Order: sequence, then structure tokens, then C-alpha cells
Amino acid sequence: MTTALCPGSFDPPTNGHVDVIRRTAAVFDRVIVAVVENPSKTPLFTAEERIGLFRATLGEKPGVEYDVFEGLLVDYAASKTVDVVVKGLRSAGDFGYELQMAQMNASIRGMETVFMPTNPRWSFVSSSLVREVAALGGSVEQLVPPAVAAALKERLS
Amino acid sequence: MTTALCPGSFDPPTNGHVDVIRRTAAVFDRVIVAVVENPSKTPLFTAEERIGLFRATLGEKPGVEYDVFEGLLVDYAASKTVDVVVKGLRSAGDFGYELQMAQMNASIRGMETVFMPTNPRWSFVSSSLVREVAALGGSVEQLVPPAVAAALKERLS
Amino acid sequence: MTTALCPGSFDPPTNGHVDVIRRTAAVFDRVIVAVVENPSKTPLFTAEERIGLFRATLGEKPGVEYDVFEGLLVDYAASKTVDVVVKGLRSAGDFGYELQMAQMNASIRGMETVFMPTNPRWSFVSSSLVREVAALGGSVEQLVPPAVAAALKERLS
Amino acid sequence: MTTALCPGSFDPPTNGHVDVIRRTAAVFDRVIVAVVENPSKTPLFTAEERIGLFRATLGEKPGVEYDVFEGLLVDYAASKTVDVVVKGLRSAGDFGYELQMAQMNASIRGMETVFMPTNPRWSFVSSSLVREVAALGGSVEQLVPPAVAAALKERLS
Amino acid sequence: MTTALCPGSFDPPTNGHVDVIRRTAAVFDRVIVAVVENPSKTPLFTAEERIGLFRATLGEKPGVEYDVFEGLLVDYAASKTVDVVVKGLRSAGDFGYELQMAQMNASIRGMETVFMPTNPRWSFVSSSLVREVAALGGSVEQLVPPAVAAALKERLS
Amino acid sequence: MTTALCPGSFDPPTNGHVDVIRRTAAVFDRVIVAVVENPSKTPLFTAEERIGLFRATLGEKPGVEYDVFEGLLVDYAASKTVDVVVKGLRSAGDFGYELQMAQMNASIRGMETVFMPTNPRWSFVSSSLVREVAALGGSVEQLVPPAVAAALKERLS
Repeated sequence: MTTALCPGSFDPPTNGHVDVIRRTAAVFDRVIVAVVENPSKTPLFTAEERIGLFRATLGEKPGVEYDVFEGLLVDYAASKTVDVVVKGLRSAGDFGYELQMAQMNASIRGMETVFMPTNPRWSFVSSSLVREVAALGGSVEQLVPPAVAAALKERLS
Repeated sequence: MTTALCPGSFDPPTNGHVDVIRRTAAVFDRVIVAVVENPSKTPLFTAEERIGLFRATLGEKPGVEYDVFEGLLVDYAASKTVDVVVKGLRSAGDFGYELQMAQMNASIRGMETVFMPTNPRWSFVSSSLVREVAALGGSVEQLVPPAVAAALKERLS
Repeated sequence: MTTALCPGSFDPPTNGHVDVIRRTAAVFDRVIVAVVENPSKTPLFTAEERIGLFRATLGEKPGVEYDVFEGLLVDYAASKTVDVVVKGLRSAGDFGYELQMAQMNASIRGMETVFMPTNPRWSFVSSSLVREVAALGGSVEQLVPPAVAAALKERLS
Repeated sequence: MTTALCPGSFDPPTNGHVDVIRRTAAVFDRVIVAVVENPSKTPLFTAEERIGLFRATLGEKPGVEYDVFEGLLVDYAASKTVDVVVKGLRSAGDFGYELQMAQMNASIRGMETVFMPTNPRWSFVSSSLVREVAALGGSVEQLVPPAVAAALKERLS
Repeated sequence: MTTALCPGSFDPPTNGHVDVIRRTAAVFDRVIVAVVENPSKTPLFTAEERIGLFRATLGEKPGVEYDVFEGLLVDYAASKTVDVVVKGLRSAGDFGYELQMAQMNASIRGMETVFMPTNPRWSFVSSSLVREVAALGGSVEQLVPPAVAAALKERLS
Repeated sequence: MTTALCPGSFDPPTNGHVDVIRRTAAVFDRVIVAVVENPSKTPLFTAEERIGLFRATLGEKPGVEYDVFEGLLVDYAASKTVDVVVKGLRSAGDFGYELQMAQMNASIRGMETVFMPTNPRWSFVSSSLVREVAALGGSVEQLVPPAVAAALKERLS
């Protein structure tokens, strides 16, 4: 049995995130979606709210769990007996940074990472761009799940 | 249980290939190493020889099988009930081509691909460069397993 | 009035090509789709057949013309009083080569080029990959227009 | 008739910006140079000053207008009946970000973007690097128009 | 005789930095390692401490000198009769930014830059990632020299 | 004293090559320009002709020598007591391949390589593109030295 970890800030979850988690759950036996709690940043949604948005979108899926973590990813992963970290990859630009992080995590604690390519339809979508467009009053309904679009509307009004 | 497929021409296997297969076998329950037979090319080693070089290097590993395939990767993968294709990724240059192939394979038959980053030590090693250096009399002993170095010496002398 | 030139080998036209031409025609007053005739290559479809596949797909569109050219793009463009060359751009990988060609064409004859980003849905589709998959019996119906899928089936059977 | 929009912060305009606007004006019938007003940033020059620097450099050019905008680019573009956004592109590094923005703008409001490659001579010039070098007392006279060099000298002394 | 300049913030020095300086010293007659003093940033180690960490790691090496500089690199280099700036290069991602800086420095004062590729073993190591991991309590002993690991432990405890 | 090696096929030399050699000669004490003789290719100009074109362009320069080599670059470099290989670098696209070669050469025989960024003016010029344009009758006079333009005219007429 293989346990995969999908870490991220997911502030908010996008259609790209949901797609990667669905496909990861189809490949691996058990998936932990772990939302990063970063004390030095002020997120738009709390970690618990972000988990709620995933649950509202994906429903209860056998083999998929949600959690919150702080600190080093590799320490958290070791505490959960994770076999592999799964990261979505959108573009060659993403790749440089993600490769550096993956090699660092392999170096400091032997943690393996694999990259799952984003569905091309969502290759340009990022949480930060979604927040920016929504804050300026633009429509993001085609880029995020309905629960997220509703939460953004409420939060930013 | 998750079955991973590691396809490649592996002509010859390098330290980078061996490293990716070892790490894939540590993450997934079952791994099929599938050597491509391309009728329009003349390889340096036959597909059977390449499998022999992997066996001589990795020994018998529980959960690791070897096979040869021709034609479309997605057709072969479907015939073997593979869950996911695993490809080693060395650099941003590799990424562009591999992303295109992964998205094509997802599009034509729903086959998922994940990328495993190469160990940085072997990030510059490719089969074609190994063949080229060996053919010009250069030493490749630090880049390929001992069985491959010996086979190259014999084949190219 | 602005005349745009869309040059390419289009062997065969893909959904990506058709999308770029449709969008170019919506932006510019007049569009010339110019199929390259390269005497040193053996294409799958003749230049005339490729134009036929575009016509079958796009119908008669006001402001869109088709032509065949040989030799230097900038000489052909000058003979047609073109204002700007429009090239579809799929990825950072494409960009390096296309930028080099654009700067060369600006240098040798002052010809301007602009790049139109491919619709993300078709970002992984290329004529050569389509030919390769189709030749191995794979389904390309979701990647090319119906007229092209039919022509490929006939040509490759 | 085609209307092109050249948006940017242009703080300050560089030789690269001026070159792209000149070439855009040669290709399209009408060009709107739109300076972004970002209330959350403190620019070196006000939006009006930046427009003044363009006017001092380019003179009155038929078909070229200047404007200031705030908020979403696509909303502004729609209010001006723009056909296409034109962005200068210097390098593969630029491309990743600009592609994401272009695909986002196409997605949220159907706005088309084309990229015009920078003249190689100015491929390394950016407003932020110009500000940084000028603030440290370095000479930027070969990188910006004379009016901008003079304004920088005055502003930073 | 050729004098090379290795500028950087080196906050702290990593195994990658030490490797590039060792190899630069093997190629060039004289090497100046110049630590940037940036008044607008609060470094983890003072410029003098960073030089101390290099000395503790590399010992006294004939032909290698240490210095601190503020302001424009090209002005500092001219004051030291430097022939060429040497920068380590880890990845294609680094390359875009470093190329821009090199071309800028050539343009504003004729200063030449060459890039020395990082040893693949350290291609993923950066000072900022080392600081981040160490601050979260992770082990960085395999990424930095012993003197730096000890200094980090003391500084961050 | 430092000896630099500038290897290449230079078929034919371009303004970019000449610029990199001039700047390399300004930095290093001694420069060997080494033209690759590849028995499996048919060049447009013989190795001796290419050296002649460099001499006609650069004149006799103290510290600059010309040579021809076959086989592994690292073996040739060792036979000449070279300290470092210098390669021109035009773009991020070049970088991936050149980094792989440099790391390979460091691995198989400890040979160091540094990259010298091309002058932006020639960043799009390559020998193969020059041959292609010249063969189709295009003007390459602004891309190559006068001696090369004349030789191309003669060779291709």
C-alpha cells in the first residue's frame, strides 16, 4: 500500500488543485491532503476553511484524508509514514523551483517526490492570480469550484 | 496495490536509470520496466540484452518485472493494467518534451504519468551521451553500472 | 488595414492550428495562411491537400486566404505586402526557437513577428506527434478536425 | 481597423518599451499605451509623468494615444473596444509569466494577447534594473531615452 | 595574469559556493571573493562573519583574497582592476536572471562575466533555502561546510 | 597564466563567434580556437578554410592560436594543457545542452568549462541558420564578417 502526500497552501483551492487530488487518489491507495499553516503570513482563508472547501467540492472520498501542518514538510511526512510527496506541475517555470525543493527534501531526509502534470485546461491557474482577479472584481467562476467561488464572493465583498 | 510502468529505450541503462527504478520500486508495490523495441532504429544493444544489463545490476528484486514492448505506450500500458507511468526527469529541458508526451497519453487513453526527479549526481547523464563518449574511447565507468561498462567495452572494441 | 501571415507546414493541420487561425482572423483584417513547400522533405499530405483540409474545416471565411510558398519566408512575405507574421506559441520550449527565427527575420528584412499563445487545451498537440500516434494506430480524433482525422485514417491504412 | 493595447507600468519607460510601441504602431492602425496606476505601490514617476516621458520621446504619432488605468486589464480593454493586447517579450523567463497572464485574460473575458519580441539590443533592460542602477549612481543613458535619463537624474539627486 | 571576481551575498556560504570558489581559484591566477553589504537588508551573518566562515572553510589559499563591497558591482570591480566576474550557475532558472545582469554590466561599464556551472551535487542548494530549513530545525549539515553548520546552530538557537 | 580553449564547428564563423573569441582573448592570457573535424559530417567549409576565415577577420592577435581536433574534447584539451574551456552562451535553450556537456566533461576528465554570454546583438545568430538563409538567397551580411559573407556567396553560387 502506498501513501501519497499532497501538500500546499491552497489559498484558495482551484480547479487545478482539485484535479490533481482526484487523479492522485485514483493512482494511490491513500492520499493525505495537507494544508500548510504559515504563521508569518495572513491567508485569505484559514487552514480549516480551506479543508472545508475541499470537502464541499470532493465530498467524502475513500482513501482521502485532510490535515494541517506547520514547519518542515519532511518532518511532517515522516510523522505520517508517507511514501511519496505528490506535487502538481503546471509549467517549465514551476519545474525549476519544485525540482529544487524535491532534491532538498530527498537530501535532508530521504523523502521522495513525484510530479503530476496539471491538466492543460488549468495550466495557467494559480491561487494568487485567482485572489488577485477576484479582489479586482473579475469573474473566477470558471477557474475554481462553486464552493470556492461563493466563499471568495463573501470574503471579498 | 499500485502498478507503475517505467518505459524507456535504455540503450544502455545508466546510473540515472538504475537510480530511478530503485526509487520507484521503493514507492510502488509493483514496477514493470518496459524496454522499447523500435523497428526503425538500430540500437547498440538488443532489448533482451538491455534487460540482461538491468538484471545483472539490480539482481532479482521482489515486485520488479522486465518486459519489451512495441507500438503505442498507452496500448501496452492498458494491456498490463498499469496505474501510472513513471518517468525520470533530469532538467527543465527534459520537462518540455515529457510534459507534452504525458498530456498526449492522458488525452488519447486517460493514462496518468508522474515524473520522478533524477538524483542530481546523474542529472547530466544520458544514454546517447554515454554511447558517444564510449565510442570515442572516453571513460564512462563513473556513469553506468559495471555490467554496462563491460558490455560497452566489448561491443565497441 | 493590417495583413497577417500565418506560415507553417501544417502536415496535418491540428485543432491548435485551426484555433490560432480563427483567433488571428478575429483580430486582423486580412489573413494569409501560407503552407510551406519544402522540396527536401516528403510530407504526409501535399500542400494542396493541406489547404483542402483547412477549407473543409474553416469553410470560406471573409478575409482568410490560402497559399503555398517555397524559399525564404521574408521574401514571400514581402511579395504579398504582409504587415506581420503571426505564429502560435505553445510552450517555453517553442519560444526559444521561434524567438530566434523572429529576430532573424527582423534582421534580414525588417519583417515583424508576433506570437499568439495557443489555447491551453491544445498546448501539447503537434503535427509530428499526431502523425506518430496515428501511424501506430492510436486515436487522434480529439486532437484534429474531423476532416483531418478522416484523411489520416485513409492515408495510413 | 485593429486597435492594439500596450499596457505596462513603464516606471520609467526604457528603450525597449519605446521600440515595442514604435513597432506596434507600424503594424496596427491604432495603439493605446495604457499606464497602470497601482494604488498599493509608490512609483518613482506618477502615471502622468510617465505619459509625459513617452510624449517627449515619441512626439505626436498619428494613431497613438496615451491613457491611465486602474483595476483589471480586461475590464479596461473592454471599455475601450480593444481588439488585442500587445506585450513585449524579452526572454524565456518573461514568457512563462506572460503566457499565464494571457491565458487568464482569454479565460475571464475572451481578451486576446499577442507577444512582440523585444529587439535583442534591449533584451536585458527592465525598468526595475534601470531604477536600481540609477539609484546607485550608474549610467543608464544607453538604456533609456534622453528625456528619461534627465528625469531620473533630477528625481534621484 | 587574470584577476577574477566572485561576488555574492553568501549569507551563509554553502558547499556550492565553496566548490565554485575552489574551482575558480584553480583556473585563474588571482581571485577576489567579494561579499555584498546591502544596507537595506538585515542579513543573518555580518559581511565580516561571512568572510570568517569562508576562511575557516578554505584556509589561507594563495591567490584568494576576501573583501566587502557596497553599491554597483561594476564600480567596485573597476576599482580593483578585475578582468572578469565569475558567477556560479545552478540551473536554467538562474540563467535568465544572471544573463540579464551580465549583459547589463557589460553595457554600463564594459565588465565581462563568465558563468561556472555548479557541481551537480549542489545544484539545488541556495543560501535562502539553507536559512529556511535551518530555522525550522532541519539538518543542513550535508549542504554547508562544518563551520557554517556550527554557526547556524548557534545563531538560530 | 591561464590557457582558454574555444572549441566549435564554426561552419561558418559568425559575428557571435568572433565577438566571443575577441572577448575571451581580452580576459585570458592565451586562447586556442579549436575547430572540430567530424568525419561523419560533410561541412560547408573545411576545417582549414574555417581557420582561414577567422584569420582574415581577426588578423594576427597575440595570444590567439588556431587548431583542428577530432575525437573527445577532453582528450584534446588535456594534450594542450588547457586550463578551461570557454563556450559562448546565447539563450536558456543553449544552456540546457551546454550545461550537460560541461558537467560530462568535468566528470570524465576533470575539465572545467565557463560560459561567456553572447553579445545580445548576436543572440539569434547560429551557423546553421546562416547556412540555411544563405542557401535560400537571403542576405547574411549583417550576421557574419565580410570574409565569411564573400566565401558563402562563392561557395553557394
